Amino acid sequence: MQGGEFSISTSRRMDLIDITPQISQALLATGAGDGLCFIYNPHTTAGLTINEGADPAVRDDILAVFKQIIPQDYPYKHLEGNSPAHIMSSLMGSSVTVIVENDLLRLGTWQKIYFCEFDGPRTRKVLWRIS
Amino acid sequence: MQGGEFSISTSRRMDLIDITPQISQALLATGAGDGLCFIYNPHTTAGLTINEGADPAVRDDILAVFKQIIPQDYPYKHLEGNSPAHIMSSLMGSSVTVIVENDLLRLGTWQKIYFCEFDGPRTRKVLWRIS
Amino acid sequence: MQGGEFSISTSRRMDLIDITPQISQALLATGAGDGLCFIYNPHTTAGLTINEGADPAVRDDILAVFKQIIPQDYPYKHLEGNSPAHIMSSLMGSSVTVIVENDLLRLGTWQKIYFCEFDGPRTRKVLWRIS
Repeated sequence: MQGGEFSISTSRRMDLIDITPQISQALLATGAGDGLCFIYNPHTTAGLTINEGADPAVRDDILAVFKQIIPQDYPYKHLEGNSPAHIMSSLMGSSVTVIVENDLLRLGTWQKIYFCEFDGPRTRKVLWRIS
Repeated sequence: MQGGEFSISTSRRMDLIDITPQISQALLATGAGDGLCFIYNPHTTAGLTINEGADPAVRDDILAVFKQIIPQDYPYKHLEGNSPAHIMSSLMGSSVTVIVENDLLRLGTWQKIYFCEFDGPRTRKVLWRIS
Repeated sequence: MQGGEFSISTSRRMDLIDITPQISQALLATGAGDGLCFIYNPHTTAGLTINEGADPAVRDDILAVFKQIIPQDYPYKHLEGNSPAHIMSSLMGSSVTVIVENDLLRLGTWQKIYFCEFDGPRTRKVLWRIS
């Protein structure tokens, strides 16, 4: 099974970082052909999602509403102060999968793949596999 | 990799549309055998989910609570008026995967596969692959 | 396609149950090698997620906030009283996929795989496949 991993550095507490370029480049370098590209986040205070890439305001709106929905002042039992980030991690999910055709991601017109940082800034890893 | 795509027309702003018949028919026509069926939504204001199919009230309840959880009047930065749909898209996710046995979906007793329209009515595409 | 299923008994209305040991054991017994492990929940009032395993308080916080976000007193149309569980099921999702290397799950340092019971106590099934 072909695949690899790469690191990204996040610079804010919460951020949606477009990792489509790294994935696209890896697929071309691998000669991935046709199949499915599985992308995995090994962290418990981060996630992955696919959403609009044209207007950066969409990313801001997603993060703003996540912050509003998940209470920050709740009497959390986990004492590290990042329970909201753990909850957001489960809401987004730990992986996304995208169709690959001729070494290229077959995303929809407006779709980009985002790494979701919910407890940064940190250095994070992203794993991917072709099947 | 075997697969295909089909279109659906949604008729309301928000709707959960049972696409199990289209997927089941495609698997039989393909002679999919045993494996996994990956189903992908290429749109950023829609999603896919698996939930109960027996009582249509479950679908109504899911949509009603999504509308209540995601604020409609928030000062969104994205000016197209559909930021709630983008957020719901990420909450549901862009794909679902189901086990296939003898050309048939192995869903649980009450499960159906739903296309989630959050910014309709529109014509939408669904992509699927067998692995 | 290699795979199998197992049952778990849940003992509370809502619970996150670590099923990593069952999956790990199944992979070793199968000689799964390298690939992807797909894990599927066939129930509509339960889900699957990957989150922190070190501090049990994280699980309590996730469930507490889910209960707070999804209204319990809403005028739900579905009359079985478990609409919140159906909604939580879609928020978590019906499956997770994890990378397998040398018969072992390649989870992140703090990650465990959780079965999410939202309408227990019940006996539940978990299906898994290697691809």
